[in-house]
Amino acid sequence: MDMLLYWAGLSAVAVNALTGVLDAGRKNMDVIGVMMVGAATALGGGTVRDVLLRRPVFWVGDQVYLVVALATTLVVFFAVRGLRLPPRLFLIPDALGLALFTIVGTQIALEWQAPWLVASLLGVITGVVGGVLRDVLCNEVPLIFVRGELYASAAWAGALVLVGLQALGVSPVIAAWAGMASVLGVRLVSMAFRITLPIYSERK
Amino acid sequence: MDMLLYWAGLSAVAVNALTGVLDAGRKNMDVIGVMMVGAATALGGGTVRDVLLRRPVFWVGDQVYLVVALATTLVVFFAVRGLRLPPRLFLIPDALGLALFTIVGTQIALEWQAPWLVASLLGVITGVVGGVLRDVLCNEVPLIFVRGELYASAAWAGALVLVGLQALGVSPVIAAWAGMASVLGVRLVSMAFRITLPIYSERK
Amino acid sequence: MDMLLYWAGLSAVAVNALTGVLDAGRKNMDVIGVMMVGAATALGGGTVRDVLLRRPVFWVGDQVYLVVALATTLVVFFAVRGLRLPPRLFLIPDALGLALFTIVGTQIALEWQAPWLVASLLGVITGVVGGVLRDVLCNEVPLIFVRGELYASAAWAGALVLVGLQALGVSPVIAAWAGMASVLGVRLVSMAFRITLPIYSERK
Repeated sequence: MDMLLYWAGLSAVAVNALTGVLDAGRKNMDVIGVMMVGAATALGGGTVRDVLLRRPVFWVGDQVYLVVALATTLVVFFAVRGLRLPPRLFLIPDALGLALFTIVGTQIALEWQAPWLVASLLGVITGVVGGVLRDVLCNEVPLIFVRGELYASAAWAGALVLVGLQALGVSPVIAAWAGMASVLGVRLVSMAFRITLPIYSERK
Repeated sequence: MDMLLYWAGLSAVAVNALTGVLDAGRKNMDVIGVMMVGAATALGGGTVRDVLLRRPVFWVGDQVYLVVALATTLVVFFAVRGLRLPPRLFLIPDALGLALFTIVGTQIALEWQAPWLVASLLGVITGVVGGVLRDVLCNEVPLIFVRGELYASAAWAGALVLVGLQALGVSPVIAAWAGMASVLGVRLVSMAFRITLPIYSERK
Repeated sequence: MDMLLYWAGLSAVAVNALTGVLDAGRKNMDVIGVMMVGAATALGGGTVRDVLLRRPVFWVGDQVYLVVALATTLVVFFAVRGLRLPPRLFLIPDALGLALFTIVGTQIALEWQAPWLVASLLGVITGVVGGVLRDVLCNEVPLIFVRGELYASAAWAGALVLVGLQALGVSPVIAAWAGMASVLGVRLVSMAFRITLPIYSERK
């Protein structure tokens, strides 16, 4: 489980760095600006989780995460530079990064003795913060606030699946895969069919 | 005093969650978006204080705060949904939350051995951060930056009253009430009479 | 070295507070608003570094930093109030604050056992965060994202000079001066000659 968690974390870092580059690239930032956006997208969620939960922050203690984030950013920057990509393409890696980070974040919070509701919320935070930073730095409306799609709620659903299955005695590895599938499933289905939650409307 | 502090903290969480819902509701967010704004408004100030001062963050260690924040958000969401409320109505609970959080935050900082000036500032941070997060997430100018009213200075005045009275040997409970009354008084009087501080104006 | 580091830190705080006041002043904020911007500019970078690296945050443990930040803000506020200053004047103290904070931040991270790449990045963070907070609070495009000038890359170059010289056995004091000169040099030369890095451009 520990190895799986470590590799899932590194994969999440790489995937989120990729989405950061794709988004920042559309703003014609220079290579350092793009690296900063890529690193913030890749490391932001876990950083906020660790600041709330434990010390040291994961990438300060283990340099590998930072190297993966920066290397991914550089490779993607020079690979896709000059290509004309469909602007919504990055929604697929974004959903994958959301799923990976949510599950890794929830699992780490559980291992650090957070109560279950707190752990699920720390998972959501780990999942969504990188993307929010990316969108804010690129001056776009964060995906989390886009109307007509589920985003944080997809993450929360998956985090609760993970917590619930483990409470029922399911093995952590299976619970992790089921949680990840839940995040991805809810997110992609809601994007495809525009499933929404009740809207608060004061002015209607 | 400890019990009073605990209940004042929970009240502050509930009041700030309420203002978050009222503000987010006007933006027609869905229920999860509103819950996120409510939770950020309710827990943001104390989170920043704890990140600067101590570990663990209060709501990570004690799940009750998170439950109160989310429950308040949900109840208010479904209670006021569809109502047409005067847009400035939420300034009253906002002032109450500012006062409660400032006093609780200052007292906690003093108990954690912060020097008095730092403690008063941590109180102001505890008081104002939730509302700033709320306004930023709802894409409004934070109340703290609105011209012609006192906001952070009202909080600071109350925090200094608390610190000063305790230094003079007044009982902590009385000092806390006096501090809270000072925050509320300065804030409400400045709103009613538009009392302002000197403005820096370079271009006049 | 420790004394030098302490005084460099205090100087950085004062210089950044100055730039905060100059920027906030152009927005006609009141004195408390200007003090908040000044304090955020002066203390923001080191705060983020410490939140990632160690406890307690520097200005919570030692009240002197906060006093210097607030006193500088007040003095500058009343000194320059009403003057008509060239809007780009503050770029010089901004570059000085960037250099001081980057070097101090990198050195502190090294002393706290951060790996070298992490230490250089924490130095960049210490250097740039204050200015980003200032520009965001004043509703301007952060200097770090301005096209056609080096900013974060100037800081990173200096941090790497510091790390590299120390690895080569150069005395920490000389390495610190060389690092600072590198940040200032790269920043000022890039401002004068508009030296840029490769731009990612998808749409060309």
